[in-house]
Amino acid sequence: MRLDELAARLDCRLRGDGGVDVARVAALEQAGPGELSFVAAKKHLALAATTRAAALIVAPGIDLPKPLLETPNPYLAFARAVALLHPAPRPVPGVHPSASVHPSASLGAGVHVGPGAVVGARTRVGAGSVLHANVVLGDDVELGDDCLLHSGAQVREGCRLGQRVVLQNGAVIGSDGFGFARDDDGRYHKIPQVGSVVIEDDVEIGALTAVDRAALHETRIGRGSKLDNLIQIGHSVSVGPDTVMAAQVGIAGSTRVGARVTLAGQVGVNGHVQIGDGAIASGQAGLTGDVAPGAFVSGTPAMPNPDWRRASVVFAKLPELQRRLRRVEEALARLRSTSE
Amino acid sequence: MRLDELAARLDCRLRGDGGVDVARVAALEQAGPGELSFVAAKKHLALAATTRAAALIVAPGIDLPKPLLETPNPYLAFARAVALLHPAPRPVPGVHPSASVHPSASLGAGVHVGPGAVVGARTRVGAGSVLHANVVLGDDVELGDDCLLHSGAQVREGCRLGQRVVLQNGAVIGSDGFGFARDDDGRYHKIPQVGSVVIEDDVEIGALTAVDRAALHETRIGRGSKLDNLIQIGHSVSVGPDTVMAAQVGIAGSTRVGARVTLAGQVGVNGHVQIGDGAIASGQAGLTGDVAPGAFVSGTPAMPNPDWRRASVVFAKLPELQRRLRRVEEALARLRSTSE
Amino acid sequence: MRLDELAARLDCRLRGDGGVDVARVAALEQAGPGELSFVAAKKHLALAATTRAAALIVAPGIDLPKPLLETPNPYLAFARAVALLHPAPRPVPGVHPSASVHPSASLGAGVHVGPGAVVGARTRVGAGSVLHANVVLGDDVELGDDCLLHSGAQVREGCRLGQRVVLQNGAVIGSDGFGFARDDDGRYHKIPQVGSVVIEDDVEIGALTAVDRAALHETRIGRGSKLDNLIQIGHSVSVGPDTVMAAQVGIAGSTRVGARVTLAGQVGVNGHVQIGDGAIASGQAGLTGDVAPGAFVSGTPAMPNPDWRRASVVFAKLPELQRRLRRVEEALARLRSTSE
Repeated sequence: MRLDELAARLDCRLRGDGGVDVARVAALEQAGPGELSFVAAKKHLALAATTRAAALIVAPGIDLPKPLLETPNPYLAFARAVALLHPAPRPVPGVHPSASVHPSASLGAGVHVGPGAVVGARTRVGAGSVLHANVVLGDDVELGDDCLLHSGAQVREGCRLGQRVVLQNGAVIGSDGFGFARDDDGRYHKIPQVGSVVIEDDVEIGALTAVDRAALHETRIGRGSKLDNLIQIGHSVSVGPDTVMAAQVGIAGSTRVGARVTLAGQVGVNGHVQIGDGAIASGQAGLTGDVAPGAFVSGTPAMPNPDWRRASVVFAKLPELQRRLRRVEEALARLRSTSE
Repeated sequence: MRLDELAARLDCRLRGDGGVDVARVAALEQAGPGELSFVAAKKHLALAATTRAAALIVAPGIDLPKPLLETPNPYLAFARAVALLHPAPRPVPGVHPSASVHPSASLGAGVHVGPGAVVGARTRVGAGSVLHANVVLGDDVELGDDCLLHSGAQVREGCRLGQRVVLQNGAVIGSDGFGFARDDDGRYHKIPQVGSVVIEDDVEIGALTAVDRAALHETRIGRGSKLDNLIQIGHSVSVGPDTVMAAQVGIAGSTRVGARVTLAGQVGVNGHVQIGDGAIASGQAGLTGDVAPGAFVSGTPAMPNPDWRRASVVFAKLPELQRRLRRVEEALARLRSTSE
Repeated sequence: MRLDELAARLDCRLRGDGGVDVARVAALEQAGPGELSFVAAKKHLALAATTRAAALIVAPGIDLPKPLLETPNPYLAFARAVALLHPAPRPVPGVHPSASVHPSASLGAGVHVGPGAVVGARTRVGAGSVLHANVVLGDDVELGDDCLLHSGAQVREGCRLGQRVVLQNGAVIGSDGFGFARDDDGRYHKIPQVGSVVIEDDVEIGALTAVDRAALHETRIGRGSKLDNLIQIGHSVSVGPDTVMAAQVGIAGSTRVGARVTLAGQVGVNGHVQIGDGAIASGQAGLTGDVAPGAFVSGTPAMPNPDWRRASVVFAKLPELQRRLRRVEEALARLRSTSE
């Protein structure tokens, strides 16, 4: 694609030769002739000076001796450039002969059902949705239009997914919540989990992530939220819109996570707590209680990030502090014996 | 079902109108006419006062202007009420035409084998067990009666599961333990894992949880224990009966976990240690050594919970402590120079 | 097998009766007549004195009243003995009738494709490789010779695996990396992940471990590295040769892990950092920045292990330190008032 056409499609300001042809995108280090790359931050300017890319997407104020596409959000323009230049292959519509689609299920126009995929009774799959190999949809599942379920993803009975939902490989939606009542002998009895899961529009769920069904009502993931791999979402959790969670986050039952929240990798969140809109937790934080909207927390138990950073610096010096305290005590004892 | 019949079936004391009909269970917030809810703790009394539920299961001493089912263990009665009012649909017995059952395998009476499920050579499936879509049982597997394996669950060759075992979606039983011997060049050589896994009666294993086979003998999960999602059980681990582990717990090889142990989410346990009966570990704790029976531990490395709580409070104040220590040192220096 | 033959095959020095027959291997506790066990460390000598094993593999300097196989690396000899005495059953070559192999795919000599397995378009499977039940290989995948993919493992489009690669059950290779660009309204837009994953020779990937594909170039796992279960490898990560990671480790995007690195269970590593060759991180460590070659780190944020151990000892005493500091302050205040 010619750079001037790409500039128009990406809503970027063209600086330099618009007649250059770009066929692919690539990282600064690997890019070569015919490839488009991007510079999102000034710290990458040194690398950008040596790239062999044919053209670059840049933020305003960045100047380089290349054809440039200037935009206030280079990362977003880059995302769109990738989609334009590397369109994902569309699986052909139709049901593979080895798939098992229940006679009472309904498939919208253009749906692809791959080898070994299973669609349960009364389940409805929206137009344009793709079920890759060995995907399993249980009975009474509702799937919106243009969903993309990668191989091995599973959606249990009665769960509802909106439009354009993406499930990565092996994701599990609607497994039983972890609910057991203990009797007087210390034995656990299962509380049947008769609720469901609702995944709103434009959500992406990572590989091998589990979203448990509620005991009674519903577990809900809000519109546009993005969950990475190997995450655990407990029963009756609700997650607001536009929230992101990195890999291996775990959220215990009945917790409410707000909108635009960011949870870094391996964060753990207790059950029955509230995480306010826009809150951020750094990696491995343990959120044992409510977190205020907009707060940035770290550590276990979680505390404000600046406090945690300062306390962690002192933690490393604890043996020294202990020695200094002992010396002070000794000096004081000597002073007192002198002054007596 | 009439409330007086339900009271009899749940062994509860009926207080109020036994002629009320209840058809479903629901949480206090969502319950409406014809629905049964429960009040387990006095802290939910305010919510209970506003619920539209037709009747409530309550502990003795709780009084509300509703028909009530009174029992010392409301949570357990509620679990039974859910099972009574929401019986799980029984998949029809039989083998789906797309399933692959080895000719030498044996299936008990009433077994259901779903689409795409695979049953290996010489494998035996007990009466009434259900294998949902794409479940895989390897060769020489033994599965007891009335087991329930959700879609995508996998049991490797030679593993044995007792009666009424539940595997949630994507659970893996019998993957190879992580055992490698290092040679003089620093290269790792696999130690073939020729042991197996034994899962005793009434165990439930969560979605995407892995229980590794032993190198030589067996990995064992004790009767009635309940494991949540995304848990790692290393090779040759043994877990006693009636133990519960929340999501994302990891237990390294050869560790022995006792009976009635509770491990909260994301707890890590070292290899070759012993966790005593009835021990409790709070979320994200790192159990680096043995834990005494009945102990309640927290933190990494784990310590008694009350000590950890108190130390964590001081941790947050470390920068302040450091400043106070410096002031004390300075004051002392001034005192000494004065007294000289 | 006669012990003298086994000694020759394992390159061990025979001490005692070479005519003894050993048929199996077993742990010291469980071993009986006809079984071989091993003593790797002097701490197991007491146990070894009571074992009923027919013969033992031992390190030089260990003396026991049994036929012995002496070698400087007993653990490695034991690994080989297991492989010799317990050869894994070879699945018969051929494609199960319920498998789906795309007409444009190519299968090498002796390949086994199990029930329900799926092989995509243009995908090449090397000679002797085994795809167990319900394995899914996407389009344009390259798999070397003698690979072993356990049931439910999945390899996405365009990924390349070398020779003798082992994937445990449910492992996912090539799921989309977690890349989203945020617009001015706080909504996230997917950055199509058009890179791939390269797994070099002799790598083993654990059950339910996810290795994400790169956004643009490749994610790479180096020759001979061994990854345990439930691990997350982010996009564009590179891992050097002969590195081991225990279960539930998580590595964020673009991080470079060196050769012969050891990451214990539940370690988290930030994105865009470098972990030097031979570095070691203890369980649950949080590696927030670069780690020098050969360093041994612990804690979050990670610090040198000896420092962390010492600081952790003092951490447990923080309430006591706080009390001592207060007493010092009070004593000092009294002294000053006295001296005034």
